[in-house]
Amino acid sequence: MPFVYQCRLRFADTDASGRIHNAAIFRYFEAAEAEFLRAAGIPYSYLDTLGVKYPRVRVEADFTGPIVDDDLMDIAVRVEHLGSRSYTIAFSVEVSGVTRARGKIVICCMDPLTERSTKVPAALAEILKQHA
Amino acid sequence: MPFVYQCRLRFADTDASGRIHNAAIFRYFEAAEAEFLRAAGIPYSYLDTLGVKYPRVRVEADFTGPIVDDDLMDIAVRVEHLGSRSYTIAFSVEVSGVTRARGKIVICCMDPLTERSTKVPAALAEILKQHA
Amino acid sequence: MPFVYQCRLRFADTDASGRIHNAAIFRYFEAAEAEFLRAAGIPYSYLDTLGVKYPRVRVEADFTGPIVDDDLMDIAVRVEHLGSRSYTIAFSVEVSGVTRARGKIVICCMDPLTERSTKVPAALAEILKQHA
Amino acid sequence: MPFVYQCRLRFADTDASGRIHNAAIFRYFEAAEAEFLRAAGIPYSYLDTLGVKYPRVRVEADFTGPIVDDDLMDIAVRVEHLGSRSYTIAFSVEVSGVTRARGKIVICCMDPLTERSTKVPAALAEILKQHA
Repeated sequence: MPFVYQCRLRFADTDASGRIHNAAIFRYFEAAEAEFLRAAGIPYSYLDTLGVKYPRVRVEADFTGPIVDDDLMDIAVRVEHLGSRSYTIAFSVEVSGVTRARGKIVICCMDPLTERSTKVPAALAEILKQHA
Repeated sequence: MPFVYQCRLRFADTDASGRIHNAAIFRYFEAAEAEFLRAAGIPYSYLDTLGVKYPRVRVEADFTGPIVDDDLMDIAVRVEHLGSRSYTIAFSVEVSGVTRARGKIVICCMDPLTERSTKVPAALAEILKQHA
Repeated sequence: MPFVYQCRLRFADTDASGRIHNAAIFRYFEAAEAEFLRAAGIPYSYLDTLGVKYPRVRVEADFTGPIVDDDLMDIAVRVEHLGSRSYTIAFSVEVSGVTRARGKIVICCMDPLTERSTKVPAALAEILKQHA
Repeated sequence: MPFVYQCRLRFADTDASGRIHNAAIFRYFEAAEAEFLRAAGIPYSYLDTLGVKYPRVRVEADFTGPIVDDDLMDIAVRVEHLGSRSYTIAFSVEVSGVTRARGKIVICCMDPLTERSTKVPAALAEILKQHA
């Protein structure tokens, strides 16, 4: 069973088309990721103490149906890939049981001093492995 | 020669990492697309009068280097694919001559009444073909 | 007792200062307002069916302390003023019991056809009066 | 003559009302402020080297008319008040010569170590005085 984060689409994230603005979906992916890690016992506030940064090196999203103001979204979070220095998290957004968007983010662990890639911290890797 | 839109990264689009927030890159792609179409003689204000909507059905971005507050970005715009009902625009972001991000958006023309896909308007298709 | 909406500051709403970006506070005020009205039994999805629009004609915020990524915010919502055509909602944001921001929004009901001010719908006025 | 920054309202900053989202106006104030300081010869990239931070302690905006996608905005920037530790910048947004929004931001200079207020750096104060 994937972790599911539930929240509403906020009006600020709509645009003049009357639907969600494309960039805004990544805000919701981010919130879902944060709650997924918190639920797994390892919030970003802890991860940030490990001397590693977590930049996204790739983000993508597909929109398969409209998401409008106040829609109650179920955002499923799944670890799609776990490498030694990067990992991929996949998201699926349902409204009323119908998929409206999907997406992925690829995070590459970075040493903040050298700004080069570094190993996924062990505590995080363990959590990600459990949900892969 | 691709169309290049030049603008600065605004502080509002940074995050606590000190760099651009991942979602914000799509704001700049959007601005570059709008200016590309304006330069080609067919701004969205005109396209919106044609009874067609232009939802993005896919967006993606790769980050290859840091983009920070006030960076002067050169965003190259290229038509990567022109279909009968959809088209793909590709973007490349350089700062000081070094590529920092790349991305694509796929737009599917939609009939606003039926909310089903429809043909790319002829005037737009012609412009896109010239830059493909 | 004012209505209190609890939520976390999301990373996307921080900036390179390491704190919340000033514009982002209005996103959270908006979410708190929406949940306040929902709790009162009259969500915007209902208000939008009454043939009235609800543009903000004034927004303001004071920042009295830092709000950082993942902070759990308690946002108190209070109706400060109810006029015949407009109303003012006040917000107060606490983190760990300390006020970090305050603000107000003034909403003027608008007839979407004439784009002129119009009366606050009776159902909404009644709710607002109860919380004034 | 006040400094005027010209730019277009971007689609991402509209909402489902078809107009600018209220929070977005502060993005444009910020861009106008940055360009005002650059034109005055003292960009934020320089100010950030002076060991002072520039948090906004108050922001406000009034909306006097619609601003819609692609509107070409003239944003006038004026220094309204210069104190020893804080300063106020006022903005006025015109579209086609008609004022559509006004606003102010109050910035309090902060020592990043103590997180207490500190003096406006002399180089900045001089520029602000010239435009007050």
